[in-house]
Amino acid sequence: MAQKPGIPKGTRDFGSQEMARRNYIFDTIRAVYAQYGFEQIETPAMENLSTLMGKYGDEGDKLLFKILNSGDFMRGVTPENIAEDNTNKLATRLCEKGLRYDLTVPFARYVVQHREELTFPFRRFQIQPVWRADRPQKGRYREFYQCDADVVGSDSLLNEVELMQIVDTVFQKFGIRVCIKINNRKILTGIAEIIGEADKIVDITVAIDKLDKIGLENVNEELRQQGISGEAIRKLQPIIQLSGSNTEKLETMRQVLSDSETGLKGIDEVAFVLDTLDKLGLRNALELDLTLARGLNYYTGCIFEVKALDVQIGSITGGGRYDNLTGIFGMPGISGVGISFGADRIYDVLNQLDLYPQSVSTTTKVLFTNFGPAEAAYCLPLLAVLRNSGVPCEIYPDSAKMKKQMQYANAKQVPYVVLVGETEMQQQKFTLKDMLSGEQTLVSGEELVEKLA
Amino acid sequence: MAQKPGIPKGTRDFGSQEMARRNYIFDTIRAVYAQYGFEQIETPAMENLSTLMGKYGDEGDKLLFKILNSGDFMRGVTPENIAEDNTNKLATRLCEKGLRYDLTVPFARYVVQHREELTFPFRRFQIQPVWRADRPQKGRYREFYQCDADVVGSDSLLNEVELMQIVDTVFQKFGIRVCIKINNRKILTGIAEIIGEADKIVDITVAIDKLDKIGLENVNEELRQQGISGEAIRKLQPIIQLSGSNTEKLETMRQVLSDSETGLKGIDEVAFVLDTLDKLGLRNALELDLTLARGLNYYTGCIFEVKALDVQIGSITGGGRYDNLTGIFGMPGISGVGISFGADRIYDVLNQLDLYPQSVSTTTKVLFTNFGPAEAAYCLPLLAVLRNSGVPCEIYPDSAKMKKQMQYANAKQVPYVVLVGETEMQQQKFTLKDMLSGEQTLVSGEELVEKLA
Repeated sequence: MAQKPGIPKGTRDFGSQEMARRNYIFDTIRAVYAQYGFEQIETPAMENLSTLMGKYGDEGDKLLFKILNSGDFMRGVTPENIAEDNTNKLATRLCEKGLRYDLTVPFARYVVQHREELTFPFRRFQIQPVWRADRPQKGRYREFYQCDADVVGSDSLLNEVELMQIVDTVFQKFGIRVCIKINNRKILTGIAEIIGEADKIVDITVAIDKLDKIGLENVNEELRQQGISGEAIRKLQPIIQLSGSNTEKLETMRQVLSDSETGLKGIDEVAFVLDTLDKLGLRNALELDLTLARGLNYYTGCIFEVKALDVQIGSITGGGRYDNLTGIFGMPGISGVGISFGADRIYDVLNQLDLYPQSVSTTTKVLFTNFGPAEAAYCLPLLAVLRNSGVPCEIYPDSAKMKKQMQYANAKQVPYVVLVGETEMQQQKFTLKDMLSGEQTLVSGEELVEKLA
Repeated sequence: MAQKPGIPKGTRDFGSQEMARRNYIFDTIRAVYAQYGFEQIETPAMENLSTLMGKYGDEGDKLLFKILNSGDFMRGVTPENIAEDNTNKLATRLCEKGLRYDLTVPFARYVVQHREELTFPFRRFQIQPVWRADRPQKGRYREFYQCDADVVGSDSLLNEVELMQIVDTVFQKFGIRVCIKINNRKILTGIAEIIGEADKIVDITVAIDKLDKIGLENVNEELRQQGISGEAIRKLQPIIQLSGSNTEKLETMRQVLSDSETGLKGIDEVAFVLDTLDKLGLRNALELDLTLARGLNYYTGCIFEVKALDVQIGSITGGGRYDNLTGIFGMPGISGVGISFGADRIYDVLNQLDLYPQSVSTTTKVLFTNFGPAEAAYCLPLLAVLRNSGVPCEIYPDSAKMKKQMQYANAKQVPYVVLVGETEMQQQKFTLKDMLSGEQTLVSGEELVEKLA
């Protein structure tokens, strides 16, 4: 036999069990989004490269999958272009389109393109795959789904509150215990302001984040090595050693940041969100975490991240507020806030904790065996009745040996098998076999439907 | 403002109403497939070009969207290659991957790649987008969904029977009246055999298909122009003028094809399918149509097509049996049969006939207006209760003017609005406005939930 065909590295096939589990994840998230009045949209897999390029940094431009122009793609490309252009430049001569890299930029494009049809505040959700030419590795794929919800056109903090409620509800439905971490970019800006090291804020949060692992002495040493002044490190001490309840932390921070207008604004924002959610009562813990920075530069207000409590895995959901996402497409001044569930990691967590409900299965409930044309014809009307009653069932299509048919039933984990031979046909009955107990009963068609429907 | 951003030609954005309708279509088809024991799979959007190329003819190879290799894609491409290669050849030097063109070839690849894990007969369904660099035109897109089901590893005609039942059930659920047309490639081969014009079978069916429009004389004239001999045309007369019930047609054909073993086999196959379905009782008409040929070369047995009765539109579903789909990947001798629902055309038919159920809507059921932080805080707990009770609701996030909030409710076609001011808060009540009747009632939280849940 020829060599087995394969699929591109970093991509996956999903079989029926994986599909059932993935659908369960998407359906759960979709249902909660809908409860909160979010509207589903979908955008094309391909966007114009002019929409995508320059939005994810130089590195991101390289990670875009670009689609070769149809027809004579070399037309207009000169030998000089080939000799002199860098790879990205030459790629844009050969390609006008690329696969979407995330759902955020296509969403911003969508809002600007359709702004006359949309009603603001616009709350949309979107569950679609994205593609990145990243080096594939464990848990990182070149095609994966994102599950985003955003509200644009409103700077009310109620949006942040509702997104946290959504997170809380989704993970409660999954049965995954989580800690929701919240911070605010304005607080980070405030910290940078008061210590006079505006450009070092990321280094600082990285160092602070290590407190549990390496201890206070070593954190301070690391800050010194990063070139932070002694005076700044002194001012940072209450922040590094910040502890207690969210309220206590906010109180400390309010004192530390008393000279930073931006910092105080960030504290007010977080305080409102925490206070409102405290009254509403979340099922999962919500924790102010000053070391939470999130990489994306476009965040400007509250930022969040969700950690699973019972599994060692990175953040499984994240998001935040941005003030100018549509500005890149010529529509400035639109504030928005969004979250994104990491479906692949949630899948792994549900697997590890074995949390899928029993009902998440695509298995056929009843297999009718097939011992000949007459027997099959005798069974077909009952199959129709069962299907009308919502019982997924099938008949083995070929008159194969008993053993082969039972192997099929076992491989598909079908819980019931119906056996029909001459005896059953004469008596107008069906032998129903419970595959778990092995028990066989002779029943009428009506009894069979009643038992299984 | 800068020029509005757009999307590649032939692609589409889907807003919330379109999404609700499309989800309704996909969910309906998915549910019926599942009732028949089909398992859902998904394959990656990108396949290796070695999997895709050469499977759809030269024209198809041109219509594949090819993905530029990451990194230094020009490495190994010489000036001679650029000067001498034709477009397709050069493309394969620059690209290893392409977007899938249909679901059939990826399915064949899936079966071969995973054959050790699969249980045969393998019944899978798959609902995913495909991409073709076709010239976009009305009703033809460069990205569109296919909804396929196939059974491979069984040559039993019960599979054909069940696929027709699926078609019948799906369109009954949609409320679309259809005619299911059936034919068999072996019958067409038989016809070619007995008239000795094996290579002209397509020309012949095209001519025959015009009988209603141009009349018998002109059909015969066209056949003569195609170079069909007078003797052959004489033998074709009973076929051209074939009429009556399916049984009568089969009887005539059995006489015409009495010298063709293949032709008679085709008639037996169709007779079995028609006879079995006749006993089971379909809701839609099933018609033997000898002019049905279907373009795809890989069909070898029964072929089907579905026409909507109440809308002028092309075929909205089609399929057939193939005997060697996995042979191209080195796994010969696997027979299969499949169908594919045309989601975009079904969408158009449902729109034209206005057949979407009332429930197909994503609209928020209740909008809570927002007249300030205290009023909003007063409403939030009730929103949580409503959502827990399955009522999609939202609160206007900003304390905006009444008019603006009501405009929002109207634009989103929200059926109920809750108004809360000082009076309501003092009385621990809510004013519920029915947006259709304009009626306003003062109710408690419990009454409101009871009314809307």
